[in-house]
Amino acid sequence: MTASELLAEIADVGRDARRGGYSRHAFDAPEHDLRTWFVERAQQVGLDVETDRNGNLWAWWGAPGANAVVTGSHLDSVPGGGAFDGPLGVVSALAAVEALQAKGFRPAKPFAVVVFAEEEGGRFGVPCLGSRLLTGTIDADRARALRDPSGVTFAEAAAKAGLDVDRVGADPDRLGLIGQFLELHVEQGRGLIDLGSPVAVGSTVIAHGRWRFSFAGQGNHAGATLLADRVDPMLPAAETVVAARQLARKLSDARATVGRLVPTPGGTNVIASTVDLWLDARVPGTSTPQLVEEITQAARAAAEAEGCELAVTRESYSDDVVFDDALRRSLGEWLGNPPELPTGAGHDAAILAGFVPSGMLYVRNPTGISHAPEEFAEADDVEAGARALAEVLERLAR
Amino acid sequence: MTASELLAEIADVGRDARRGGYSRHAFDAPEHDLRTWFVERAQQVGLDVETDRNGNLWAWWGAPGANAVVTGSHLDSVPGGGAFDGPLGVVSALAAVEALQAKGFRPAKPFAVVVFAEEEGGRFGVPCLGSRLLTGTIDADRARALRDPSGVTFAEAAAKAGLDVDRVGADPDRLGLIGQFLELHVEQGRGLIDLGSPVAVGSTVIAHGRWRFSFAGQGNHAGATLLADRVDPMLPAAETVVAARQLARKLSDARATVGRLVPTPGGTNVIASTVDLWLDARVPGTSTPQLVEEITQAARAAAEAEGCELAVTRESYSDDVVFDDALRRSLGEWLGNPPELPTGAGHDAAILAGFVPSGMLYVRNPTGISHAPEEFAEADDVEAGARALAEVLERLAR
Repeated sequence: MTASELLAEIADVGRDARRGGYSRHAFDAPEHDLRTWFVERAQQVGLDVETDRNGNLWAWWGAPGANAVVTGSHLDSVPGGGAFDGPLGVVSALAAVEALQAKGFRPAKPFAVVVFAEEEGGRFGVPCLGSRLLTGTIDADRARALRDPSGVTFAEAAAKAGLDVDRVGADPDRLGLIGQFLELHVEQGRGLIDLGSPVAVGSTVIAHGRWRFSFAGQGNHAGATLLADRVDPMLPAAETVVAARQLARKLSDARATVGRLVPTPGGTNVIASTVDLWLDARVPGTSTPQLVEEITQAARAAAEAEGCELAVTRESYSDDVVFDDALRRSLGEWLGNPPELPTGAGHDAAILAGFVPSGMLYVRNPTGISHAPEEFAEADDVEAGARALAEVLERLAR
Repeated sequence: MTASELLAEIADVGRDARRGGYSRHAFDAPEHDLRTWFVERAQQVGLDVETDRNGNLWAWWGAPGANAVVTGSHLDSVPGGGAFDGPLGVVSALAAVEALQAKGFRPAKPFAVVVFAEEEGGRFGVPCLGSRLLTGTIDADRARALRDPSGVTFAEAAAKAGLDVDRVGADPDRLGLIGQFLELHVEQGRGLIDLGSPVAVGSTVIAHGRWRFSFAGQGNHAGATLLADRVDPMLPAAETVVAARQLARKLSDARATVGRLVPTPGGTNVIASTVDLWLDARVPGTSTPQLVEEITQAARAAAEAEGCELAVTRESYSDDVVFDDALRRSLGEWLGNPPELPTGAGHDAAILAGFVPSGMLYVRNPTGISHAPEEFAEADDVEAGARALAEVLERLAR
């Protein structure tokens, strides 16, 4: 099957009627359906599928072994996300395997297609959780204790999905099998639109992280409480949103976003008792913590002015990543020197890059929009991406 | 049973583990349980209970009829609300009936205890929905079309609860039965704390309303989207929160609150595509619409600066209410001239005040906090309130 045909098969899984697009989160029903579908499709082209101790799926073409060529991406989405972010890399890998088999190729090296768990952090808050666990980039106890918005822990959800929760965590034996990792992904900005190429090679990933700001005040009646008597955490939360934009704007190429903000209890005629907001901050180089510190200072001043308490928790942070030089040069050479693109988006390949030679291919996105229903790739570009992936996998695995 | 004993019976119904306090919303399971409990308790003291066409419960002591003395309040809560707001007026009414019966009193006039539906607007957004429908203050078609946060309409929920949805709306025959309406309620501010009295008589209710501000932008990736390329509705929403406080502060005794704010899709690494916030605004006199207009102008300017669309919808509005002069004077005289208190909180009694002589009694709240778990009344004050209510009901109904 082609990559487009495979994508079409899952076009109805996890649609989000309220938000638009797709909501497919770690271990929920749509994500479970996608895993089942992946196992079937991988078996259909003769791959042997296993689930690792962290919930990542590995589909082996031939026997598992060291110095393996590994490719893949993820099947989970952000809430209300697009159809391509994640699944495109998975379907392109399956399509590449089928195309290579059709021309009689058999890999000389061990070869696997991998589906990483909870790449978006859409349920438990930490992005790339599956690859962070595999590589030991996140402590297993911390991961087990992560909670989704309804209070379910990662440990509880993983156990329900059949994982042995005691074994969650760093998996050096498995990580040691990977010779090279290659992830194909839809482009998440406008970088490829005007460059005349359907495919680019990834160069760098900007440093990025997530911080939770919890403002605590005094819940009260919205009508009976005089302004002077209020301790309303919505005020400093709002001022933090504004400060984040203002402070990020002073730095070249920085990004600061508040896309999630939850007042509790959340009644119209109720002064909130707490407001939680999540800051997503990304600055090229080493300045992200500094930007977050400045935003924290502004938040703290606003909280004090209203009499609120503030607690700031770092939920994740990753340094700048430069993808493997040699692999990048090879990819460029084998694909006729397509453009190289940096990205502000995080990826499992950027986590793995700290441990094994890793690289990325991006497929042109004519809207430049991602993490939203408008995310797109033309069918021709999808097939061009799958062909490019097959081309480089063949060379890596022979 | 005493008012405190009755309150204790429902102390476990609708507890909200996440928010603290209680979440009891129109036609949900806890509210259903409270209705069932009310019917049983009313029948136990010999009252005949009926549900009116708008879901309000009427428990008649003797035959229904014109010039009735009616007392009561509501059983629903805000999300994460206190134990007293609403239920205190209902249990005090039942306790008053029992106390009057114990002393051999039989009302000469028709007499009813009423439980109004959806007083907080916690589910369908419009406060005092039951009394607004009864009085025709809200159009029946508009009410039927109101939606809860999960998209269920009032019509759907009411039908499921057994109402004939076609008959929802103004009920002049029933309204015409009310001779006087009296609502006992926990005080929702600090007004009674230093006055040495457990009970006050209500004087006025400040004009109040709710407006929904819907900001629409472009959902996108929080890492891959440059600041310059963003159309992020969280920015103007946050600026509106700040502007509401600043503009309200300029007016004497004005209140402006944003306690509910919902970004969609609500992902940490996702620029929101829309943000809805609800403004609760209250200004003594006629200035509330003017304040909202000024906040709207600030919101519109912020939206335009970010390239966002803004739609503002008025969900409810009520003018200043002065409770019936003669009834107020009588209440004061019969109760030994307790303090008179204005309030910034809305009540069913304030809706009814536009149609029938209405009044209120407030019971001291030592925390001054309401719409939050800290809302409180001492047991002695609860009983003092129930005794005061019995005292005035006896005089009104003989």
